[in-house]
Order: sequence, then C-alpha cells, then structure tokens
Amino acid sequence: MKRFDWSDRGSRAAALARPQARENDALLADVRNIVEEVRTGGWAALVEQSRRIDGFAPRRLPVAPFARVGREMIPAATQAAMQFAAQNIESFHRQTLPKDVQVLTYPGLAVSKLWRPLDRAGLYVPGGRAPLFSTLMMLAIPAKVAGVQELVVVTPPRPDCTLHPAIALAAELCGVEAIWTVGGAQAIAALAFGAGDIPAVDRICGPGNSWVAAAKAQVAAMRGGPGIDLPAGPSELLVLADRSADPATVAADLLSQAEHDPDAQVLLVSPCSEVLDAVEAAFAIQSGRLGTTLAPFRSIACADIEEAVAIANTYAPEHLCLAVSDAPTLLPSIRNAGAVFVGGSAAESFGDYLAGSSHVLPTDGAARFTGGVSTLTFMKSMTVQQLSSQAAASLAAPAAALARLEGLEAHALAAQARAAS
Amino acid sequence: MKRFDWSDRGSRAAALARPQARENDALLADVRNIVEEVRTGGWAALVEQSRRIDGFAPRRLPVAPFARVGREMIPAATQAAMQFAAQNIESFHRQTLPKDVQVLTYPGLAVSKLWRPLDRAGLYVPGGRAPLFSTLMMLAIPAKVAGVQELVVVTPPRPDCTLHPAIALAAELCGVEAIWTVGGAQAIAALAFGAGDIPAVDRICGPGNSWVAAAKAQVAAMRGGPGIDLPAGPSELLVLADRSADPATVAADLLSQAEHDPDAQVLLVSPCSEVLDAVEAAFAIQSGRLGTTLAPFRSIACADIEEAVAIANTYAPEHLCLAVSDAPTLLPSIRNAGAVFVGGSAAESFGDYLAGSSHVLPTDGAARFTGGVSTLTFMKSMTVQQLSSQAAASLAAPAAALARLEGLEAHALAAQARAAS
Repeated sequence: MKRFDWSDRGSRAAALARPQARENDALLADVRNIVEEVRTGGWAALVEQSRRIDGFAPRRLPVAPFARVGREMIPAATQAAMQFAAQNIESFHRQTLPKDVQVLTYPGLAVSKLWRPLDRAGLYVPGGRAPLFSTLMMLAIPAKVAGVQELVVVTPPRPDCTLHPAIALAAELCGVEAIWTVGGAQAIAALAFGAGDIPAVDRICGPGNSWVAAAKAQVAAMRGGPGIDLPAGPSELLVLADRSADPATVAADLLSQAEHDPDAQVLLVSPCSEVLDAVEAAFAIQSGRLGTTLAPFRSIACADIEEAVAIANTYAPEHLCLAVSDAPTLLPSIRNAGAVFVGGSAAESFGDYLAGSSHVLPTDGAARFTGGVSTLTFMKSMTVQQLSSQAAASLAAPAAALARLEGLEAHALAAQARAAS
Repeated sequence: MKRFDWSDRGSRAAALARPQARENDALLADVRNIVEEVRTGGWAALVEQSRRIDGFAPRRLPVAPFARVGREMIPAATQAAMQFAAQNIESFHRQTLPKDVQVLTYPGLAVSKLWRPLDRAGLYVPGGRAPLFSTLMMLAIPAKVAGVQELVVVTPPRPDCTLHPAIALAAELCGVEAIWTVGGAQAIAALAFGAGDIPAVDRICGPGNSWVAAAKAQVAAMRGGPGIDLPAGPSELLVLADRSADPATVAADLLSQAEHDPDAQVLLVSPCSEVLDAVEAAFAIQSGRLGTTLAPFRSIACADIEEAVAIANTYAPEHLCLAVSDAPTLLPSIRNAGAVFVGGSAAESFGDYLAGSSHVLPTDGAARFTGGVSTLTFMKSMTVQQLSSQAAASLAAPAAALARLEGLEAHALAAQARAAS
C-alpha cells in the first residue's frame, strides 16, 4: 500500500505512473526474426520455430473429445454458469450490433454507411497456469454475432498435447470446432500471413505475453498486414470511493485485480482518509486470508469527488468502479474508461465473466481513444454513394470547382462527365 | 495499360499486386531518432528538428487573416461549393453518429455501451503542390460532429510562412481557429507527446508521406502512445464494368485516380473484352488531352460479373465503382471496399469532395478489416454495468464458480461479497 496525496503536485506523476514497457530491443529483434521466418518460410518455418520455442509442432485439435472430458469433469453448476455467461454475452453483443444507415445528403443523392463482418478472424487464447476460457468466450461470441465466417483459434501447446477441458467446453459453446496448438510470435505470424492449413486472417485478437504483443504490433504495422484488437498491457482497476462505500467490498475488488499479475495496476481514489484507512485495513486482512502475496495497491487522497473524477479521466483506467452514493449521477462526467461499474453492487468480477460486455478492454491509457472488443472489432464499415443522373448533373459543377482548387484536373473532368450523361 | 486474364492463374498475383512499401530500415531509423528527440527534448528539440528538416521553426498561425485572403481570391462559386460540401459532410456524419444502447441482459442488470468523444485530436494536412483543403474538411468535420473539444491541426510550413488561402478558408468553415506550421515525423511526435504549446492528442489522423506514415505507426505502437486513423498507402480505384458501362466515363474515373500519384493503383475488371478495349482507347485519348503522363492502369478480363465481384473482394480496394447495369443488386455481395460508387452516375470525384462521407479511406487491403474515417474515429465506446443488489446476489454464485474454474480465488470472493450485501 502506498498512499499519495493529490494536493502534492510533485507526486502526481508517480501516483498515476504505469509500469515501463518490458519490450526491449532484443525482444523486438527476436520477434522480428520469428515473424519474418514464418512469413517467408510458411508451414515448415512455423513448425521449426514452434518446435524450437515450445517443443511441439502446431496441431489442429478437434474440440469435441476434450469438451466431452469437460462435461464429465466440470461441476454441473459451473457448466450452467458458462451457459448463462454465453447467453448474456451473446445478448449484449446482438443488441449492440451497429446498424446500417442511409442519409439523403442532397435530393437524389443517398450516402450509406453499411456494416460487413470480417471474413476471417484470428483469436489468441493465452496459455499459462489458468485456463482462460472466459477470454475465448469474450472474443468468439462477439465475432460470431458480428457474422464472421471463419474463426481461427490458437493457443500455446500443453505438455500433454491436449486442450484444457474448460477451454474446449467454452469453444464448443461458442461454435468453435477446432483449435490450433501454437503460441507466441510464431502463432501471430501464421495468423497474419497464413502457414500451411492456418489461413491468413483479417484481424488478430486476444491478449498474450510480451512476444505476442510485440508480434501483433509488428504485423499490424506492416503494409498489407492484418488489423489487431487493442494494445494489451497489465490489467488496471481504479476504484473511486466515498464515505458510503463498504470497505470490505472495495478491498475485495482491489484484491481481485491484484491477483491477475504482479504488474497489475490497482488504484483507490477517495476524498475521505477514513475510507482509505478502512480499505487498506480490509485489504490487509483479506490478503492474509487468501494466503498469497499480491501486488500492492496505491491509494490517492483527493479534495472531493469532482477531483476524483478528474483523476480517473486523466488515468483512463481499463476498469473504473464508482463505489459512491448516487453513483449514476457521476456517469455523465466519466470520459475515459474501458468499463465502468456503477455502485457497490457492480462487481468487476461480474464484468469479467457474465454481465455481457467483453472483458477485453483498453489498458495503458488507451481508453482515451478506444473502447474494448465488441462486434465492431469484427466488422468494418463501408460507405456507399447512389444517386440519380439528375443529382449527378447538379453535383458536377461544384465538384469540378473544388477539384480545380486542389489542382486536380482529371477529378474535375470525371465530375463533369456526369453533367452530360 | 497492362491487360491480365483472370483465367491465367499464374498471373493473378501480379494482376492484384500492390507496390512494395517504400519504408526501409534507414527511413525507419531516421524516424525513430526524430520521434525520440522530440519525445525527450520537447519544444527545443521540435524547433531544432523542424529547422533542420524544413527550414522553419513551428508557428501557430491564426486562420482568420489567411481566410480573408481566401475570400478575396477564390471564386464565389468555388466558395459556395466549399460550403455545400461542408453541409453534406456534416449532415452525413451527424446522421451516422453511433447511438448509446442499454441492454437488460438479466433481470435487474443493465449493461450499456456509451459513446464519448475524444478530448483532443491531431489532424495532419499534407503539404506538397496541391492545397488539400478537402482532407482538412474530411477530418475536421467528423471530429467536430463527434464532439471533440480540441482539434490540433498541423501542416508543413510553406516557404512564405503563410497558410494557403484554400486551407485557411476550409479551416474557418470547420471552426478551426489556428494551424501549426510543422510537418513530417517531428509533427507526429509533437502531437503524440506534446511539445511546448502543442498539446499531446488522443488520436492522430490524416495522410502524409512515408516519414509521416512511419512516425504514426511508431507512436501508435508505443505503450501509452496515441491512436491513429488508418494505414495510408497509395490511393486505389477498382472499376467493375459490364457492357452497359460508358467507356468515356469509366476512363475519366480511372484517369482521376491515376493523377493522384505515380504509385496510384488503378484497376478495371470486366467480363467483356470489348469494354476493356473501349475504355483503354478512351483512356489514351483523354490522357493525351490532359497532356500529362499518368500511371498506367491494369485491366483484368474475367469470366462473368460474379468473378469480377470475387476479384474486387479479394483486392479490397479503397474505392470501388460498380459501372454495371442494375448495380444495386451487386451491393449485397460486396464485402471488402472502403467506399462503393453504385452505377455510372456515381463519381468517385463526388465522394472525394461533397457527397458527404469521408474520403479518408483504407488502402493496401485494409478494407478487409476497417472502414474509413468517420465520427467513430473521433469517439470511443465505454461499457457500463448497473445492477440491483438482488441481481448482484443472484450473479454471485455463477460468477464465483467461473472465477474458480480459472483459478482466480480473489475474483470469486469479490463476486461473493455481493451475495451478502
């Protein structure tokens, strides 16, 4: 626990500091080599890199047999919870699908904005100790609802060459029939350019380690490369609490964030020092009960709730909890956050699993300019111009005048070609 | 003019080839140095780099005096055309603003997707021989309609230290009061990190040369860096024509595209070799009349309109013209294109200036995964969870079960904290 006072301007930067990027030149060069090997060498290079790094050649594992194991091993109540989560995620994303719009900007001229699903999306499900089946659901369900024809799911190989039963069960729930066991930068390169039976995809989504993040950034910056979802850094939670907040509940939320990662960013902002004291005490007690050493959190004392909101908007957290009385009235002043949890009943845990919105959210302050994963991540807009020949004839002269002001004579002539028709 | 036959599979890649990236290691390293200098050295470094590269220190020029010159110099009809364009652009973007949505995913649980404007956007208006006032309008108007509080507009300095009257007039029409005369990678770095009175922005938009494009990609890939709009490569037009197409009009459209840039990508696809012949002949005649040497276009003969559509979807052009009879019936099968022009009356020139949708569109095949600039470019979504304490109590057990399946005990406890409340 480190306490900051916002009135001390000199410590403000430290109070809101984020960890420095762990990417370094060696890692970036390593990733560049792996990506280039796979891009130019295709399947053979992918197999070689995967064997070298992970010890296994990529395999396309069918989901069904491992999902069967999942149905036997995973408690019925948990399976029901997975189905409940899938329903809510689908419902939210179906009802927030973008709508096609047609605008008559001039008599006889219709300009439309139409939405189309991506043809193919690549989903990266991280390996590691926990089977992050929820991440698969939070990516695959919006993609399916968006109408993506083909999902190519990859995950790092496990030593026993199986799929984790929870991952397989989630995949089955999402209508994913097979998963490629390939991870790291080599998996990203395969998704970007295709390798063997792994097809090139239009957008690569999902969190991963530093190699994965660097590879995503690199392929996205290449001309003709695919899109990616979000810059993914350590997870973040900022809780804004006033005197009405329940310290034990706030501490539980902070702890849940702290357990993600030693780099997890956990901040508490309050105008009441009693609240900061009480939450710090509750955090210590609950942390002791959990029996694990967790990342410390930062608490920031500020003047009032308005200042607390300004701090939150400056930080632009991935998750923002409003543990204040009359929390809904604060919502209009919140400008920069990936997901907002309004009032003491709103648990980040609900958002992580089953409220319905995606938990793949902007970190590192990217909430200043982007939202989290949604159906929009898996669609693109297209503008369409349709007009009558009379409208075209009317537009010819002004369009030609503007083109000539830019010195573009052929543009002017193309416009004028419609005056005659 | 180079003619390809789609039935010759061996030449398909060449028919749809795009120019190789002009970025090279030296340019990338140069850009990296400039960006790093400005990031760490601030205003002094920006002045130094700008003087070294462009010969001038950045200045913040007020728009008003140069707009006054514009009002005197630019013909009244052209000024009226600018206002007409601005109205249509504003109308289209206002009517395609995203809408906030609230979804009740479970009794007592409301999950919303809310849209917020960016606080600040940076707009890059390229220099060069033509004053691209239309690009400023196509960026600034959607940004204003989105509700962005502050637009920071930059453009490379001109030798006489003025603003071009057309740029100034467009800026005034868009409500932009001042423009910074600074260009290149150093301008992008200043917008990304702030330098002197140039504030850091949340997203940097607008086309530019290779230095600008590389700088945008670099700052966007940095942790904590701003967002950018689109990868910007050479402009592209693919015309799909059948027997009903007017060869002279099609040729005029191809020419207008070809005049952009020697690297401009101009493709004609048709199942009728007579159409290809006639358009090639018309192109040669019109090109001769224009008196400039233009980039050649490629024509591709294919089997039928369905195959032509498949070629267009594979290429994913920035602009796609459907110069075919009954063009609207093809629209549902078009999946990958930045902007579509339906029927012979729809001129790309209208879209470039005044139909209403933005002309800042995806190139290099990025239309596979992203649309062009719109109000969405200048906004971000935020999800919001609000629920009753009863709903929270009901969600506690399933959320805890899912958290435990991922091995996240503190997440489970945070969910369960709501069961008691």
